[in-house]
Amino acid sequence: MDKFSFGLWTVGWQGRDPFGDATRPELEAPVAVRKLAELGAWGITFHDDDLIPFGASAAERDRRLAAFRAALDETGLVVPMVTTNLFNHPVFKDGGFTSNDRSVRRFALRKVLRNLELAAELGAETIVLWGGREGSETDAGKDVRAALERYREALDTVAQYSQDQGYGLRFALEPKPNEPRGDILLPTIGHALGFISTLQHHELFGVNPEVGHEQMAGLNFVHGIAQALYQGKLFHIDLNGQKGPRYDQDLVFGHGDLLSAFFLVDLLEHGGYEGPRHFDYKPLRTEDIDGVWDSAAANMRTYKILRERATAFRADPEVQEALRYSGLEELAQPTLSAGESIEDFLKADADFDPQKAGERGFGFVRLSQLALEHLLGAR
Amino acid sequence: MDKFSFGLWTVGWQGRDPFGDATRPELEAPVAVRKLAELGAWGITFHDDDLIPFGASAAERDRRLAAFRAALDETGLVVPMVTTNLFNHPVFKDGGFTSNDRSVRRFALRKVLRNLELAAELGAETIVLWGGREGSETDAGKDVRAALERYREALDTVAQYSQDQGYGLRFALEPKPNEPRGDILLPTIGHALGFISTLQHHELFGVNPEVGHEQMAGLNFVHGIAQALYQGKLFHIDLNGQKGPRYDQDLVFGHGDLLSAFFLVDLLEHGGYEGPRHFDYKPLRTEDIDGVWDSAAANMRTYKILRERATAFRADPEVQEALRYSGLEELAQPTLSAGESIEDFLKADADFDPQKAGERGFGFVRLSQLALEHLLGAR
Amino acid sequence: MDKFSFGLWTVGWQGRDPFGDATRPELEAPVAVRKLAELGAWGITFHDDDLIPFGASAAERDRRLAAFRAALDETGLVVPMVTTNLFNHPVFKDGGFTSNDRSVRRFALRKVLRNLELAAELGAETIVLWGGREGSETDAGKDVRAALERYREALDTVAQYSQDQGYGLRFALEPKPNEPRGDILLPTIGHALGFISTLQHHELFGVNPEVGHEQMAGLNFVHGIAQALYQGKLFHIDLNGQKGPRYDQDLVFGHGDLLSAFFLVDLLEHGGYEGPRHFDYKPLRTEDIDGVWDSAAANMRTYKILRERATAFRADPEVQEALRYSGLEELAQPTLSAGESIEDFLKADADFDPQKAGERGFGFVRLSQLALEHLLGAR
Amino acid sequence: MDKFSFGLWTVGWQGRDPFGDATRPELEAPVAVRKLAELGAWGITFHDDDLIPFGASAAERDRRLAAFRAALDETGLVVPMVTTNLFNHPVFKDGGFTSNDRSVRRFALRKVLRNLELAAELGAETIVLWGGREGSETDAGKDVRAALERYREALDTVAQYSQDQGYGLRFALEPKPNEPRGDILLPTIGHALGFISTLQHHELFGVNPEVGHEQMAGLNFVHGIAQALYQGKLFHIDLNGQKGPRYDQDLVFGHGDLLSAFFLVDLLEHGGYEGPRHFDYKPLRTEDIDGVWDSAAANMRTYKILRERATAFRADPEVQEALRYSGLEELAQPTLSAGESIEDFLKADADFDPQKAGERGFGFVRLSQLALEHLLGAR
Repeated sequence: MDKFSFGLWTVGWQGRDPFGDATRPELEAPVAVRKLAELGAWGITFHDDDLIPFGASAAERDRRLAAFRAALDETGLVVPMVTTNLFNHPVFKDGGFTSNDRSVRRFALRKVLRNLELAAELGAETIVLWGGREGSETDAGKDVRAALERYREALDTVAQYSQDQGYGLRFALEPKPNEPRGDILLPTIGHALGFISTLQHHELFGVNPEVGHEQMAGLNFVHGIAQALYQGKLFHIDLNGQKGPRYDQDLVFGHGDLLSAFFLVDLLEHGGYEGPRHFDYKPLRTEDIDGVWDSAAANMRTYKILRERATAFRADPEVQEALRYSGLEELAQPTLSAGESIEDFLKADADFDPQKAGERGFGFVRLSQLALEHLLGAR
Repeated sequence: MDKFSFGLWTVGWQGRDPFGDATRPELEAPVAVRKLAELGAWGITFHDDDLIPFGASAAERDRRLAAFRAALDETGLVVPMVTTNLFNHPVFKDGGFTSNDRSVRRFALRKVLRNLELAAELGAETIVLWGGREGSETDAGKDVRAALERYREALDTVAQYSQDQGYGLRFALEPKPNEPRGDILLPTIGHALGFISTLQHHELFGVNPEVGHEQMAGLNFVHGIAQALYQGKLFHIDLNGQKGPRYDQDLVFGHGDLLSAFFLVDLLEHGGYEGPRHFDYKPLRTEDIDGVWDSAAANMRTYKILRERATAFRADPEVQEALRYSGLEELAQPTLSAGESIEDFLKADADFDPQKAGERGFGFVRLSQLALEHLLGAR
Repeated sequence: MDKFSFGLWTVGWQGRDPFGDATRPELEAPVAVRKLAELGAWGITFHDDDLIPFGASAAERDRRLAAFRAALDETGLVVPMVTTNLFNHPVFKDGGFTSNDRSVRRFALRKVLRNLELAAELGAETIVLWGGREGSETDAGKDVRAALERYREALDTVAQYSQDQGYGLRFALEPKPNEPRGDILLPTIGHALGFISTLQHHELFGVNPEVGHEQMAGLNFVHGIAQALYQGKLFHIDLNGQKGPRYDQDLVFGHGDLLSAFFLVDLLEHGGYEGPRHFDYKPLRTEDIDGVWDSAAANMRTYKILRERATAFRADPEVQEALRYSGLEELAQPTLSAGESIEDFLKADADFDPQKAGERGFGFVRLSQLALEHLLGAR
Repeated sequence: MDKFSFGLWTVGWQGRDPFGDATRPELEAPVAVRKLAELGAWGITFHDDDLIPFGASAAERDRRLAAFRAALDETGLVVPMVTTNLFNHPVFKDGGFTSNDRSVRRFALRKVLRNLELAAELGAETIVLWGGREGSETDAGKDVRAALERYREALDTVAQYSQDQGYGLRFALEPKPNEPRGDILLPTIGHALGFISTLQHHELFGVNPEVGHEQMAGLNFVHGIAQALYQGKLFHIDLNGQKGPRYDQDLVFGHGDLLSAFFLVDLLEHGGYEGPRHFDYKPLRTEDIDGVWDSAAANMRTYKILRERATAFRADPEVQEALRYSGLEELAQPTLSAGESIEDFLKADADFDPQKAGERGFGFVRLSQLALEHLLGAR
């Protein structure tokens, strides 16, 4: 079965934006679960506060949880990932793990630790950590090195606790360059990968990249995912659409940079990623509840079409020939020969003629056009 | 003495751009050395091909090198860094270390290895590696994981060779998101830091971030530098100016985002970085040779003014009070108390009131304005 | 007196953003008026719904208005501009004047027409029209030519009504490229100027450019303002700060691109603009009410410092010499001589030597550095 | 026949970029003409200097022109547009029509005037004017109002001359935000439309928008084209591909934002534009001459596929129903009823319920997905 999953906060988004009020009523979690199952989804994810409102009483919590579990049981939907909301409440206005206010950092850390138990109980394997408020609007107001040290302290503590409790969880950092903070710490896949290498339990940490977040920085999402895969760190992924550097749009998957979406699906399907295909999008504010479900279905339908096209692309003999022509097989070969010493290497290829070698055509446009035509179903 | 250094290719840029021919004649290296020394520079850097034209004869090489050394000896200018041009010649059109063409990769690797000896002879401590052609314009044409594997192979080989030869060099990767390739591998400081953690001799590798390169991705340069410092990886730095996401402008330092330049100087001066202040800029194409030297001087003059202002900012009692008010000291304190167990921690702060805590004002705008006014010399 | 004005919605912003709840309580309009007057402001502006909540009863309206007027009378603050909120209520989710829903378009038009009377009564000279919801997220959903025709219809109607009623108002269109819509119609100063040329009462229409809005498209704000002035269309201006293409930040004036802010003040002060200096910013969400007032004051203080620096820049003999050297006076001279015929012109300058002329240095970097140093108070 | 045209400078681009030398030999104009004809092109366009090198002798000019004409005659290719190079030679480093140097402005104006005769002789209907060097890197160095006044003077002179000589030419301004200048005057379609309204012969002036140029500013190209069409000003168009705000990529049409390309073709084909479909792209620097021709063919092939898909989209009954549901027909209706007075209008719709109206779903996501699936050939 396709591992399509959705955040409760996606279909549940009420359309409140910086310049406008909610356009849709609240969506009960069990309703979301049942409808998503009906549409063919496999999993559902949530922030603690999506399921149990911040500050809810124990009774309220129990009632909400029971209804949610009942819907899961009924539909067979799984909960592959859980995350913690450290951004909505005013207390987090300067961050959670890296707030300048130590009492807030302590509160944030407790909020995450407490959420782990629920995650483990529901069978989640992955905890996503999006530090959307960890950042600043003025460089005067944040000592970034001190903040990263607090970040590290928090992540080390969380991982140690999970291990001590035997939860067996993995943690995926979700990078974003800005919004809601002027600049957010760990702004890209790369910064998260770099930071992870400093963590005590670095093997438990990977990334949860989101299509739109990298594209907000004008970065090539497929390249970023490939680096994460190369480093063994693609623990989870957020699929959606974005039209380049601007506010976070969370469009339906494929409704942004379509060519990139094609190459992304090609990489995910043929690159060894076996985790969930998680859609983290927002149904447009102009839609009513029918539009919400249409948009949820659109994500999955587009993914499937792109997968079919990527498979046909890879299977086309003309494509295979073009890939060879472009040197893709050659790139897979080591640059040095097996056992070649540096001394030998420096002497080898003495007759290499750069002028001549510079005349080689790589045929990248032809290859690119073959991909485009497969994507368009025009071959 | 201020460690101000310049690339030979900066003052030597002839003004050739994608839409126009050169507007200035060639500048001989010894002339550049003497003039920069006169203006107060401390060091000079170069790509192999800046000093010795690609394909020059041995005699030509010797002649050029001798004249360069003579100028160095005469002026006392040092060569703190050397780099290798793997981008200008057509042979590198699909990259150097990661070209799909294996013969090109071998050529590129030899070109770098051969440049190390010269670098070591001239007393350079740092080798910068800018992989400007390592990338692609279409995701179909580059298997990024294979390319990163070739990148790693090349870097491991280079580091091993330097060690074997006893050169004692350190290596600084220079990230850039795009241009001249559509997308460049290791596009940001973060991606480079992440990648470095996979290298065999990772301790020999750091980064050489350039102001404009990060700002082309809309990223906060000061945050990036702080993360590099936090990870002990700021080996070198390229100072210049840029006006956000667009082509690589290489403006004079400070002639782009001035507020960011102020906070950058503040961080470099008070954050423990002791390496060169290397200006990697281009004198505008509209300038004649007088304008070239004016622009070189402007970089240093601006740096000094900003340093003076940063010092005054830190020394101002009102600023110190505002920093405390904003919680900067508090951020330096661990979130957990010394020896606090997780069990104790989860029970502590039981009476924490998020509503109340959320009302705290951080005074960031006041702090930001104090910085602005110090920058403007208005306090 | 300095014509510094503020929107009620600026100091009154409660800090609700796409990922977080309000961090500050509601601010009563009369409180804002009194405090701004105390800080040295000259005027206050508002959206209809800022002053009188959407759907308020007549009694509520009267009460609110009376209190507002009393505060104005008491403080002497003027109301130079009024605007209409066509974006917050769900009914406007697909736009006001250009909603695909005709009944909404009619409602929006009535809302604007009804607001004119209040504006006129309060002595406002300018009506700002920000069509923040006029746009789309998918090109399939909006026929832009039809939408512009509806936009034109609405603006012609509004202008005719104002004229018929003898209100004597002028109208300023406020461009913005995106957010809250994926793409907004009339996205830049230029698009608004182009569109205005199609209006029946085009002489009554100008623009209200906002610093951050143009910078979200990476455009040079000073150039845009100069074109608006050149076309006699700078009716009003929104001053604030932004850090390039990303979400709309509404930072304090000067806290974004400081060099651009300097040249902007220089142009406004020496370029013949006599309207309000209107600050349309948001106090950071991290601030409490003290921070709100600090931030309001910071806008004015920065403007004044920049004005002082621009005056000194223009008065400096070295700058004057550098301006002449760069050819600024020459640019003010017509390209053809007075009375020169095309035939004569084509024959004149027969001995012009492009090679020689191409060697001229313009000294732009020197000029730029002089400006920078004046801005920094370092001359 | 499809009116597909190419610039000589497109297939003729040798691959010189800011960081690298040419990778391809010069391409003779007659060869380009014959090969493009063979691939199915209809027209060819050029800058004066593409055809006749800057400073060529009269004999050289005659020889080049004769060979070009022979190729045109032989193939039947037409020359629908001609343009003038005011950017490559060092003399234009501060601009052509708006250089601070008056002698340069005079030279630039003569260069354009002299090119008109050739254009008219070859049967061109449109003169494109791309002012790529009209701009600045520092606001201190350009008085934009004076520059616009010089721009206007030049354009008025050019139009008058064309009229006086009876050439019957139309003029299309090509906007671009930046590169090669830091900021270019008339940076977007909108700015050009606004400026045109100030010209003496404004009816002879329109725009030549380029896909990538608007997308470099993050603007919606389809919206811009729709506004140009709405104002009757789409005189010519440059089709290519771009990946958002970064250097000018000039990718093959469709190899950038594919969804936008689809909606663009839909608008051009169904929106009344009858001019050339002009491809202004650059074959990647990695390609040899075979890749050049593959890339030229790819532009046309993609356009045809997209046209086919747009036609099917418009013909699909489900799409037609979805368009109605979304209110597209309603948007075509005037907001006021025929003959409705303002008094009546203000009283009508007294029972309009904004709350209720705000609940309407527009079905934009469904429509968007229908478009996507038609584009993908998946319906």
